[in-house]
Amino acid sequence: MSDEKFNVKSQVTCTAPVNIAVIKYWGKRNEGLILPINSSLSVTLHQDQLKTTTTVASSLHFKEDRIWLNGKEDNINHPRLQSCLREIRRLARKRSSDGDNNSEKLNLSHKVHICSINNFPTAAGLASSAAGYACLVYTLARLYGVEGELSEVARQGSGSACRSMYGGFVQWIMGDKPDGKDSIAEQIQPETHWPELRVLILVVSAERKPVGSTAGMQTSVQTSPLLKYRAESVVPERMKEIIAAIRRRDFETFGELTMKDSNQFHATCLDTYPPIFYLNDVSKRIISLVHRYNTYYGRTRLAYTFDAGPNAVVYTLEEHVDEFVELIKQYFPPETNGEQFLKGLAVSPASVTEELKSAIGMESCPRGISYIINTKAGPGPRVVEDTSLHLLGSDGLPKHLKQSA
Amino acid sequence: MSDEKFNVKSQVTCTAPVNIAVIKYWGKRNEGLILPINSSLSVTLHQDQLKTTTTVASSLHFKEDRIWLNGKEDNINHPRLQSCLREIRRLARKRSSDGDNNSEKLNLSHKVHICSINNFPTAAGLASSAAGYACLVYTLARLYGVEGELSEVARQGSGSACRSMYGGFVQWIMGDKPDGKDSIAEQIQPETHWPELRVLILVVSAERKPVGSTAGMQTSVQTSPLLKYRAESVVPERMKEIIAAIRRRDFETFGELTMKDSNQFHATCLDTYPPIFYLNDVSKRIISLVHRYNTYYGRTRLAYTFDAGPNAVVYTLEEHVDEFVELIKQYFPPETNGEQFLKGLAVSPASVTEELKSAIGMESCPRGISYIINTKAGPGPRVVEDTSLHLLGSDGLPKHLKQSA
Repeated sequence: MSDEKFNVKSQVTCTAPVNIAVIKYWGKRNEGLILPINSSLSVTLHQDQLKTTTTVASSLHFKEDRIWLNGKEDNINHPRLQSCLREIRRLARKRSSDGDNNSEKLNLSHKVHICSINNFPTAAGLASSAAGYACLVYTLARLYGVEGELSEVARQGSGSACRSMYGGFVQWIMGDKPDGKDSIAEQIQPETHWPELRVLILVVSAERKPVGSTAGMQTSVQTSPLLKYRAESVVPERMKEIIAAIRRRDFETFGELTMKDSNQFHATCLDTYPPIFYLNDVSKRIISLVHRYNTYYGRTRLAYTFDAGPNAVVYTLEEHVDEFVELIKQYFPPETNGEQFLKGLAVSPASVTEELKSAIGMESCPRGISYIINTKAGPGPRVVEDTSLHLLGSDGLPKHLKQSA
Repeated sequence: MSDEKFNVKSQVTCTAPVNIAVIKYWGKRNEGLILPINSSLSVTLHQDQLKTTTTVASSLHFKEDRIWLNGKEDNINHPRLQSCLREIRRLARKRSSDGDNNSEKLNLSHKVHICSINNFPTAAGLASSAAGYACLVYTLARLYGVEGELSEVARQGSGSACRSMYGGFVQWIMGDKPDGKDSIAEQIQPETHWPELRVLILVVSAERKPVGSTAGMQTSVQTSPLLKYRAESVVPERMKEIIAAIRRRDFETFGELTMKDSNQFHATCLDTYPPIFYLNDVSKRIISLVHRYNTYYGRTRLAYTFDAGPNAVVYTLEEHVDEFVELIKQYFPPETNGEQFLKGLAVSPASVTEELKSAIGMESCPRGISYIINTKAGPGPRVVEDTSLHLLGSDGLPKHLKQSA
């Protein structure tokens, strides 16, 4: 064993997706185990547009566990990171003591090197921790040969990470056990269930960093009477309704519930003391645009949702994407010499009628939106089979280190 | 009787105050009678700064009931105006048929001319309907010799008008009778109870007219699950707490409840579908400034509240006014050649320490606030004894008519 050489067999690379909640998670009943005060539901986004890639290598020669995030070494002692490492190692030990005595168990005494990158800028304000922890847990599990329910482990890294363990439409069942064993994610429908569904991320230029979601939800739980009521009395019914709407691909119900739940989440932020504001004036203009557009057509064709920041995520059907993107360009004209405004799935040029424009009747807000990512529902975490794509070299160090400033 | 001449005996002029709620009224259980879904509480502002003046004249020679508001003739057939006229006339008839048979009853068959002006611009965004209806009802009651509980009549003009029927600290008890007879205002404490209390109105420049409160609260009642919970389960306890805080002049409790209730009201607006936003970016900056100021001093010295618009009303104690106004000037520097920035009670120059400024650490927002009105709690409606101050001339027409454009 002491002669074991570092080799590709003890190196695994996986990818994991971002997810966008339509029924929001806000508030924990147990901070340590990350147990939520209500169930939530999200759509897993396609990894062609947004993903985290993580390589984990294990070797006798590593002196200590180490982690590199987006090319920079980070603190491996972060409590949530340690929770995930500890849990996966515990499951691996359990598995090997259960008699499944193969070579994998040797790795358990070895240290790991973890290297993780996102294919989207952190500045996009997308909760990268969900994809990040999902990818870490999935990759560690592959390395140690751990199988079975992993969303419970990912949850302990970042609550919403448990939902990134599956593709398509995923609910995080809050559970009621004190140890959190029943607080897990479950796929409602795979990504193939509703192929027409599209997801547009409107990246809004924000002047300042908003209150972080961990601190924010803590204050909300402590001070907002409305949050408690929402969690106990509003969300359970909404979960049932939105699951049924997804099953029957009913966009109008899905969209309306999505918007109402986003608004209610932000309402509980405002009911927090001191109040938390995540929506800025551009966010509000997008909300207004969506409602006026839907009113014009007499149907819910577009549905916005906002997480703990000003960026909008708009759900719609494929047939409406071109027109909506054209509207966004009209009302939030991009910088002509700026970076590419439209990323992701292709969008065709479209014209907007004068009638629609006059029905919307908004002033334009130049550069309010930095860029749009057009994507759709996608699959859960995957193993990357091509060994040339490992992020760690044969020396166990990242292949591409970020230059220090 | 047919020889009766128009004379000053049948002309009455009164003034009535504005009030600012600290526990908010939002939502009716009966639209026609204006019965609220929760009790509310306000401070009546001093008429030296803000008041409505109304003259009502009655004459055999008037062909029809007429009304002039701020120098322009308005529609007398407005249903709420008609409710007030009808109710007061009913009470007057009731009184005279009860045997109190004096000359006043003759007026009942005569038409009235009503003329009303505010001493503050409508653009200030202060709910002028409360002072307006309170003044109308109070003046009509004087004209017809009606006494007794008039807040129930004022309520039928504009809900919050019932609270302007008293000075000082006033609660509007929601009541539970279907006919609304127990939905009345009641003085908690007179204006002399807490002489150190100050009220600063920060008039925020708004780009557009927000959703009106009548339509807004209707939509909220129909669509916000959080509003229903607030009305039933949060407000009753808050009413008790704030009344106790006012009684013992406990500014910290009073201020904290005031801010929490304002935030919760705006939270229910956001939970409305489609959502309603009354706070703009300047409003949010004021909120942030107040919290940072209070955090710096480790006490609640300032408390904001916002109605159905972006203007802030800040409650504080006299000793903190000078410093707060100086802060506002620093962070919202006024236009140097604009109109007078500070109106109302005198404010002394003050300096702000660098330490406080760095604790607040906000960027300045030039011209975000148009002007400040510094005022305090004041008395209820009053009769104007000086007959030269009547707004109607001996011809029964307004003395000062607004030039048409």
